[in-house]
Amino acid sequence: MQLLVAPAALLARPPTSAFPVGAIGLGMSGRVYVGVNLEFPNLPLQHSVHAEQFLVSNAAACGERGLTRITVNAAPCGHCRQFLAELVTAESTEIVYKGKCYHLDDILVDKFCPSDLIEPGTAPLLLEQQHNAVCLAKHFSPSPGSSISQEAVAAAVNAAVNSYAPYSRCPAGLALVTNSGRVYGGGVIESCAYNPTLNPMQSAYIAFAAAGEADFAQVCGAILVELRGAAVSHEASMRTALRCIAPGAEVVTLPLQLKPQQQ
Amino acid sequence: MQLLVAPAALLARPPTSAFPVGAIGLGMSGRVYVGVNLEFPNLPLQHSVHAEQFLVSNAAACGERGLTRITVNAAPCGHCRQFLAELVTAESTEIVYKGKCYHLDDILVDKFCPSDLIEPGTAPLLLEQQHNAVCLAKHFSPSPGSSISQEAVAAAVNAAVNSYAPYSRCPAGLALVTNSGRVYGGGVIESCAYNPTLNPMQSAYIAFAAAGEADFAQVCGAILVELRGAAVSHEASMRTALRCIAPGAEVVTLPLQLKPQQQ
Ligand SMILES: [Zn+2]
Ligand SMILES: [Zn+2]
Repeated sequence: MQLLVAPAALLARPPTSAFPVGAIGLGMSGRVYVGVNLEFPNLPLQHSVHAEQFLVSNAAACGERGLTRITVNAAPCGHCRQFLAELVTAESTEIVYKGKCYHLDDILVDKFCPSDLIEPGTAPLLLEQQHNAVCLAKHFSPSPGSSISQEAVAAAVNAAVNSYAPYSRCPAGLALVTNSGRVYGGGVIESCAYNPTLNPMQSAYIAFAAAGEADFAQVCGAILVELRGAAVSHEASMRTALRCIAPGAEVVTLPLQLKPQQQ
Repeated sequence: MQLLVAPAALLARPPTSAFPVGAIGLGMSGRVYVGVNLEFPNLPLQHSVHAEQFLVSNAAACGERGLTRITVNAAPCGHCRQFLAELVTAESTEIVYKGKCYHLDDILVDKFCPSDLIEPGTAPLLLEQQHNAVCLAKHFSPSPGSSISQEAVAAAVNAAVNSYAPYSRCPAGLALVTNSGRVYGGGVIESCAYNPTLNPMQSAYIAFAAAGEADFAQVCGAILVELRGAAVSHEASMRTALRCIAPGAEVVTLPLQLKPQQQ
């Protein structure tokens, strides 16, 4: 894994900091995941994606159920250490950097953690199977000429169903559509410390970049699905990001509802 | 200080988490500062302000030059630990919670820190005097009936001059104006880890709340000043926040430029 970190960092896109970060994760399944940092000129710094977050979102999207080890080419920042506290394997994941191997509790001593906000055992942790019982609140039919296909809407809803939102209880998903018709979905991944939360736009960027797509200008559409009247709305933040990254993209938001049998 | 923490937490406004956090800081000057957490329904979780950030922004606004001790009623999250790494006193500030006294290096072991991105000594650290040589790029005259007064513009520019932006090199300031004509300014406070950055809107909220103002609906105007063509723009994020918090507020952005003698 150490050998893979430096090549991974070459895939990073840090135009603002010029500080490339690469992370390699070993899943409990034996699969290996990559993460790199992404920065977006002209957007507030809060829109940046860190390599460790990229790696975890990538692993979650692949259905990975735990991380045995994460190796990084730089010290993980406090924001990422806090984000990693959501992992179902937070106590056991080895975190390797600067030639040393740590556990999270060694480097984020006496940490703030999910059990400070929610009763342990009442909600699945990060990388555990999520099962948000949400569906579209109304039938969707694509407009003629729209880039938002049924496939894109389905990807966004699927991302919402699998998203990690134990704190706001507002599952949300987003799908990006490219000029060549490819679809990349991502869901919100919340942090008990709130601010390290990865929003659905960031998770969808990660899916886009993880697939090897290089040019955000190829994004021609975005569909966000979130609960109607949600306590947290991602719409304005998505629009801000897209105006900057893919200004011509078609942007649609559709409401979700709790599945009727759950109400 | 321990005795002040619980009453401080009563001033917190956490409608989403219902988890009130209070922090009390002792400055090198001997002055004592308060910090509480602020959350905003319907905004993405990234807009939340943590008690430790509130405290530091509050101290910076008062011209405090270092913190001897910070006492908190809960474990500081990783995002805040990373934010505190910017302090000029990062190595010496005592951080007290759950009955124990730590230094930052004890609880954010082998941390990512400002010197990972910028050469030590080349820029003032947080709470050191900032001297961003910026001024308005053009003369401002208030429109008749506008809530944005000369005083508000001056407060925003002053906040930008004193803001902490060593990473983006984009100083920025914002002032909020209330129906009763009060003006509250705040500047960006960046983090080397980017995402824990406090944006100018958050710093201005903090000034508003620190003065004992209780009702964000009293905000009737906001003026943001930032560098023309900046690598980081706070405008969209300010508009998103205000649409939610004070939907009727008048919002103006004015460009800054580097002071001519500095160019
Ligand atoms: Zn990080
Ligand atoms: Zn915090």
